[in-house]
Amino acid sequence: MVKAAVLGYGTVGSGIVEVIKTNQKLIDQRAGEQVDIKYILDLRDFPGDPYENLVVHDVQVILQDPEIRVIAEAMGGVEPAFTFTKAALSAGKSVCTSNKELVEKHGAELCELARQNSCSYLYEASVGGGIPILRPLATSLTADHIDAVTGILNGTTNYILTKMDEEGADFDSVLKQAQEMGYAERNPEADIEGHDAGRKIAILASIITGKDADFDQIYTEGITAINPEDFAYAHTMKKAIRLLAIYREKNGSFFAYVAPAMIGRDNPLYGVRDVFNSILVHGNMLGNAMFYGAGAGKLPTASAVVGDMVDCVRSLGKTLPGGWSTEKLPLTDHKSRAKRFLVRIKEEDAAGFREVFGDCEEIRAGIDGELGFLTAEMDENEFEKKASRIREYISRIRVED
Amino acid sequence: MVKAAVLGYGTVGSGIVEVIKTNQKLIDQRAGEQVDIKYILDLRDFPGDPYENLVVHDVQVILQDPEIRVIAEAMGGVEPAFTFTKAALSAGKSVCTSNKELVEKHGAELCELARQNSCSYLYEASVGGGIPILRPLATSLTADHIDAVTGILNGTTNYILTKMDEEGADFDSVLKQAQEMGYAERNPEADIEGHDAGRKIAILASIITGKDADFDQIYTEGITAINPEDFAYAHTMKKAIRLLAIYREKNGSFFAYVAPAMIGRDNPLYGVRDVFNSILVHGNMLGNAMFYGAGAGKLPTASAVVGDMVDCVRSLGKTLPGGWSTEKLPLTDHKSRAKRFLVRIKEEDAAGFREVFGDCEEIRAGIDGELGFLTAEMDENEFEKKASRIREYISRIRVED
Repeated sequence: MVKAAVLGYGTVGSGIVEVIKTNQKLIDQRAGEQVDIKYILDLRDFPGDPYENLVVHDVQVILQDPEIRVIAEAMGGVEPAFTFTKAALSAGKSVCTSNKELVEKHGAELCELARQNSCSYLYEASVGGGIPILRPLATSLTADHIDAVTGILNGTTNYILTKMDEEGADFDSVLKQAQEMGYAERNPEADIEGHDAGRKIAILASIITGKDADFDQIYTEGITAINPEDFAYAHTMKKAIRLLAIYREKNGSFFAYVAPAMIGRDNPLYGVRDVFNSILVHGNMLGNAMFYGAGAGKLPTASAVVGDMVDCVRSLGKTLPGGWSTEKLPLTDHKSRAKRFLVRIKEEDAAGFREVFGDCEEIRAGIDGELGFLTAEMDENEFEKKASRIREYISRIRVED
Repeated sequence: MVKAAVLGYGTVGSGIVEVIKTNQKLIDQRAGEQVDIKYILDLRDFPGDPYENLVVHDVQVILQDPEIRVIAEAMGGVEPAFTFTKAALSAGKSVCTSNKELVEKHGAELCELARQNSCSYLYEASVGGGIPILRPLATSLTADHIDAVTGILNGTTNYILTKMDEEGADFDSVLKQAQEMGYAERNPEADIEGHDAGRKIAILASIITGKDADFDQIYTEGITAINPEDFAYAHTMKKAIRLLAIYREKNGSFFAYVAPAMIGRDNPLYGVRDVFNSILVHGNMLGNAMFYGAGAGKLPTASAVVGDMVDCVRSLGKTLPGGWSTEKLPLTDHKSRAKRFLVRIKEEDAAGFREVFGDCEEIRAGIDGELGFLTAEMDENEFEKKASRIREYISRIRVED
């Protein structure tokens, strides 16, 4: 029997307990040992909860109990999760988490600490919720040079864009509706400004390159400026608008950024709707592979954490593959990556646009007084230079393959 | 340094050599050891090939060389691959393969043999080509009770159905075109009759249940009867027609079968086109997750085999998780699984149909003299009993969620 502890008895933490208790027999069988939750750490009490007697308020009870070999950290945020995780790993206890802030900020250091103490720090749930993506990258796609990742990594914004697309509604009203349904948080900034997706693409870039990609270096542009007229153009062009988290390696340069973009029907991400997440990975031998599923939610996220715990129990005393070094990954400014742009222009500015941008594909979406131009491929510096020479444009949106 | 051998220097075998040589540095780094191909087994000689000096004609050279720790088997077919694999595993050499016939027929026995000899038998490439699906099932989705798998597991048939859908062409002409382009074999039976997909769903069912699902017990229905009129109905109903390989567990009964079916836009498999494969997995905690990519092809398939080899090198002297027992999985007749049917009926038989089948949704696809009925959910025995009471029907196609 292996004793485990859960730190934090909120949504994900209680989900972890529920997953283990519901599938106990299967999980024990796969782990090769009975997995027994001995403690649940939370500052609160849970009178009437079936596991109230497991609740402790002092992390030291867990850290100093030599029986505890595996810990699920579901507290979220950097502190005190960071301090507790360091103490656990230093004591040779493996830690599994869904905490993307902590993984993004200190993942390299925590993986190294795990290695030094012959245990593991696993964080499958931190990217793509229940979708298996980090372990497949670490253990399946090992024959490939991965040079591109394109992810829909935030369910809230994908839900909003899907609703705007299907109902022709504007951003504010769909956001309000999403908040009422619990799909968006009261303070939605981390989602709608692309920060959440940015942390996740930082983690993916770090795992792929083995170097530490820093969220602070990642350009993030959210979806607040997207409006129903943009979807009119997307429909005309048979494209979808998605908030994409992008990683690219090209000729030794590394790009990572988050921005809304149009994608065509040939892109496997085209059909990813509602709150779902999906990660498209490109390898030099494999070509494209895509991983799709529930990117958030209590039980899917908990399922991924418990999958990590099973792996830890199977490998007690060993460090599982994964992680990256503390060496910084040098990121190149996203502006220097070439792409096409759809530019919306007032009818009266069309001639001036053509003069500066040359031959562009003209798109009419049936909106009075304006039209769209699909530019040739160019980097963003070139786009901005050219754009500064025209009178004005209504908006521009990136077009990705 | 770890010495490896490749059995069979055909498409996949030469792909394996190409993947290792192209990504040698990355692969060595991830394996933790230099992976060196010492032998290539083939009956032929390859004068002028850059690796012609590695070619041997006698498998004993490989089996009796204690330096060889990992073998990639890319011969295909049951014999002599089975005999060679048994000998290799008995000598403690891990074997990685893309050989679905062998894995389906003798996977349980070979995994057990690997366990007895502290090595591994891995076969990621045998299902879904380059798509990581078997290792995620064995090592990631371990917290879930997997109760459903729906797969597009054969690229040839998906390509044919996509072309029929998009071009309105009939089966025979698209098949011929696919053969000319090398997407379909000269003898296409294994693909178009669903046998290939049937072997793959047998492997998936075995891994998920831990018991041996027997291909001979799996009902397979191919796509030869699908015609352009069926797509007219599909378009009207906003559905796609796909050859689905289905595994379901319901109340302790297990179903596995292959048949063409209509699926709606809400099904993540809806958008899977051309030669691509995709596997939709449902877990009781996770909900749906989908894995998508190149289901065949030299380099994607080889990439999966080499990924397995890396895993073996990382774990020399150990047996990796996976495999199943030789105990047979009892499969329930697919006919007893309830589903809806779209039935095409001549105009003059419509009244008689309604009388027997009761209230059905009527579908008009603009085809003179006929219409379609979407039945209520019923099992196939009930459908056949009812159908025997009407005069005749043109065709019927299953409708899956």
